[in-house]
Amino acid sequence: MGNPTAAMLVIGDEILSGRTRDANMHYLAGELTKQGIELREVRIVSDDHAGIVDAARALSGRYDHVFTSGGIGPTHDDITADAIAEAMGAAIDIREDARALLAEHYRAQGSELNAARLRMARIPEGAALIDNPVSIAPGFTIGNIHVMAGVPTVFQAMVASVLPSIAGGKPLLSQSLRIYRGEGDIAGPLADLAGRFPALSFGSYPFQKDGVFGAQIVVRGFDGGQIDAAMAELAQLLEA
Amino acid sequence: MGNPTAAMLVIGDEILSGRTRDANMHYLAGELTKQGIELREVRIVSDDHAGIVDAARALSGRYDHVFTSGGIGPTHDDITADAIAEAMGAAIDIREDARALLAEHYRAQGSELNAARLRMARIPEGAALIDNPVSIAPGFTIGNIHVMAGVPTVFQAMVASVLPSIAGGKPLLSQSLRIYRGEGDIAGPLADLAGRFPALSFGSYPFQKDGVFGAQIVVRGFDGGQIDAAMAELAQLLEA
Repeated sequence: MGNPTAAMLVIGDEILSGRTRDANMHYLAGELTKQGIELREVRIVSDDHAGIVDAARALSGRYDHVFTSGGIGPTHDDITADAIAEAMGAAIDIREDARALLAEHYRAQGSELNAARLRMARIPEGAALIDNPVSIAPGFTIGNIHVMAGVPTVFQAMVASVLPSIAGGKPLLSQSLRIYRGEGDIAGPLADLAGRFPALSFGSYPFQKDGVFGAQIVVRGFDGGQIDAAMAELAQLLEA
Repeated sequence: MGNPTAAMLVIGDEILSGRTRDANMHYLAGELTKQGIELREVRIVSDDHAGIVDAARALSGRYDHVFTSGGIGPTHDDITADAIAEAMGAAIDIREDARALLAEHYRAQGSELNAARLRMARIPEGAALIDNPVSIAPGFTIGNIHVMAGVPTVFQAMVASVLPSIAGGKPLLSQSLRIYRGEGDIAGPLADLAGRFPALSFGSYPFQKDGVFGAQIVVRGFDGGQIDAAMAELAQLLEA
């Protein structure tokens, strides 16, 4: 629809094993939609170097922006920065500005900037740092890939740091209507309606609650007047 | 680690737009882990035919099993069955056994088996039906792809139908320990420990709660004795 496109790459063994439930994807999806950026695809991969490299390359080539979450901490299983550097063909090493941020932070805390923590200053050549007001260790943007932490509070702070620097699109408007009958009852007329409003998208999202089947019909597009018109026709169709 | 591998493909505009939060992935991840099947990758794509075909082909070629969720209802935006048929090079049409299931169900309900509902009897040639005790319209397995509904209650019922027919692996055992200090404090010794137990995997999953940073250290593997030994060393290391 002409708006910028995006993908998300989640690096997360703990999500794939079912130990934890992802929260960052849902958060990012909402923030991007507000800014008129279309999230088109999400991939969740395990802590595997080659797998991260492949997914980052594929998504970076296909969408305007890629947002990653996870794997940039100090432990041995934090391999995202190195994998993204390889995906973008960039060298990676400890960078002075990132090291200085960490040194100041740990000095103020009375903690040691040990070798493990120094790994968080490994930044690919040519990257711009993403500010982390929560726990200091920065994320970074290289090319069209924005690399962020997995801890939700930190992820959200980094999203707030990076989104203002990204051009948004026209806000995508939507209206929805909940129906309490089977989708199959209205699927035919709904398809006809969708055919008459080719600039809008019509989604039907079924649910089951307390034994009752129903669906949320969502109409999306950029033209509020057209959405109003479609919703009016939808309401008529449901009375029939 | 020799266990069967799996991927999940979620067809879900509503998840990508941030309207709803996925629940099926977390459920499937837990069920597969219990059965010794390693979930290695998840992709969430939009309701786009070519995108679903591409993702299904890629995942089907790379993993032992692919589980899909969403897009098999009666409305115009339900395009998963046709996309999976194309990905597997199979013809697709209304199949008599699926049609008979739906006819009986809607007759008993006093509803009409209209053209839209008949779409749910479109099954790729050579597929086996997946039983749906909740709302009758079946899923199906073709090759190594298991196609299931998006409504969580129905998805879960279909998972229960299909999993017993799939060979599992050795149960993956795990133990975990919560630490209330920065990961950076223990990252070095943790990496050493991981090096001494190459048959185990060591994950460190940071969290922030009520302003306190900590991490969950998770040790996974197939040998319970080795995990016990590693956990004992880990406890010692944390006392040091």
